[in-house]
Amino acid sequence: MSVPDAQIYPYATGPAAVTAATHQDPQDLVFWTGWFCPASQRVWIALEERGIPYQYKEVNPYKKEEAFLRINPKGLTPTVEYKGKPLVESLVLLEFLEDAYPSHTPRLLPADPYERARVRLWLDHVSKQVLPAFFKTVQAQDKGKQEEELRAYYTALRKLADEVKGPYFLGQEFSLVDVAIAPFVVRDYIIEEHRGYKREEVGSGWKEYAEALEKRDSVTRTCSDKEHYEPIYGRYLRDESQSETAKATRAGRAVI
Amino acid sequence: MSVPDAQIYPYATGPAAVTAATHQDPQDLVFWTGWFCPASQRVWIALEERGIPYQYKEVNPYKKEEAFLRINPKGLTPTVEYKGKPLVESLVLLEFLEDAYPSHTPRLLPADPYERARVRLWLDHVSKQVLPAFFKTVQAQDKGKQEEELRAYYTALRKLADEVKGPYFLGQEFSLVDVAIAPFVVRDYIIEEHRGYKREEVGSGWKEYAEALEKRDSVTRTCSDKEHYEPIYGRYLRDESQSETAKATRAGRAVI
Repeated sequence: MSVPDAQIYPYATGPAAVTAATHQDPQDLVFWTGWFCPASQRVWIALEERGIPYQYKEVNPYKKEEAFLRINPKGLTPTVEYKGKPLVESLVLLEFLEDAYPSHTPRLLPADPYERARVRLWLDHVSKQVLPAFFKTVQAQDKGKQEEELRAYYTALRKLADEVKGPYFLGQEFSLVDVAIAPFVVRDYIIEEHRGYKREEVGSGWKEYAEALEKRDSVTRTCSDKEHYEPIYGRYLRDESQSETAKATRAGRAVI
Repeated sequence: MSVPDAQIYPYATGPAAVTAATHQDPQDLVFWTGWFCPASQRVWIALEERGIPYQYKEVNPYKKEEAFLRINPKGLTPTVEYKGKPLVESLVLLEFLEDAYPSHTPRLLPADPYERARVRLWLDHVSKQVLPAFFKTVQAQDKGKQEEELRAYYTALRKLADEVKGPYFLGQEFSLVDVAIAPFVVRDYIIEEHRGYKREEVGSGWKEYAEALEKRDSVTRTCSDKEHYEPIYGRYLRDESQSETAKATRAGRAVI
């Protein structure tokens, strides 16, 4: 997702630090990540859900390792290094994990082709409708604009909520739609505090869905302590962030 | 891709009309399409490449059939109706055809997970970098802005061209990257005539790649006569189009 800003805490903390510590041994799959990066958390959730062996490597935004920059000269997270070869883009990585580790269960894409397509359709909705509205809500400086973007965010979330069978998108089965949206659900206190967002305002059972997601083991295990996210989002909230996502939002381009 | 503007020719012509005529019998898969719509052509190319049985149904933009609006109330093309159930979004549909028709060859996604991911990564590049620049180049009205967007289009195409093994993206094997970009290659005379675009200006063998794509059977068979595309793009070139794609481009949102 991002070339992070410089003034952020360098390492995972809290439950994420514990999870990271247990994935330090060399593996075929090296997960280069920023603990703060929601796109990275998507991939991490999928790795944890499916018990895929991986080596966690924190990308220190102050001082990116040469080994990382050799694999990904742009320095973007998440990057998956698979048998020495790099792959990027969180949704591409999620599909890759399904393809490359077919025997690791649970699968996060359904077996039925039509249902797989439905999951991908709603991933597309998250990318094209939900996330641009989220970042615009965060980055808008004018009060009227903030309210307008927040309404667009509610609308995009409500459309998704209407499709959620509960507790997860497909029902009992956890899927890539849940994986893709969860990192933004666990960060929504930022817009609750600063933009007046309320889960219950979305309607259509969004609040219950959000609560189910934030309680999921793979989600809690990949979250750092709240206080460390705040300085990062402070820069977004003042529209000072220089991350790729922040710049794309300003330019009206697709974000993640 | 689009709710088309009203003033367009209602049916496929030329080679596309011949192909459409041979796919009128009822099938499990009904392909609801607009002959002019590049996103629809992507799906059509894939159907033709793989010999998947389908029923062609032209969506008449003047008078949308009730049967179509029942399946897709928004009236967007392409829509695939599979055993009575609707699916949309061209890239989702391309993946669906791979999943739902595994025994139809050639497959348009490689078997190797890493190579599949690479194809998806470049599909993402087409969606996020290439197409927004294409539509901005077409819709820009100010001369300086047109040149700026054209340069961005060249840059996006050159990055893709650098990865093309030749004659196709993966070499001899035709893949979804070729499918996704081909409809825009066959329409590039529009920006050649009106925006000064030249294939050879892209560099990195783009011209040769473009020529290989436009000669591919599945591509020629799904093209209508040139003269009918022009009134449609005239509206884009004057930035008067009211299609969803044109509106998304104006608003700085993701397009296809």
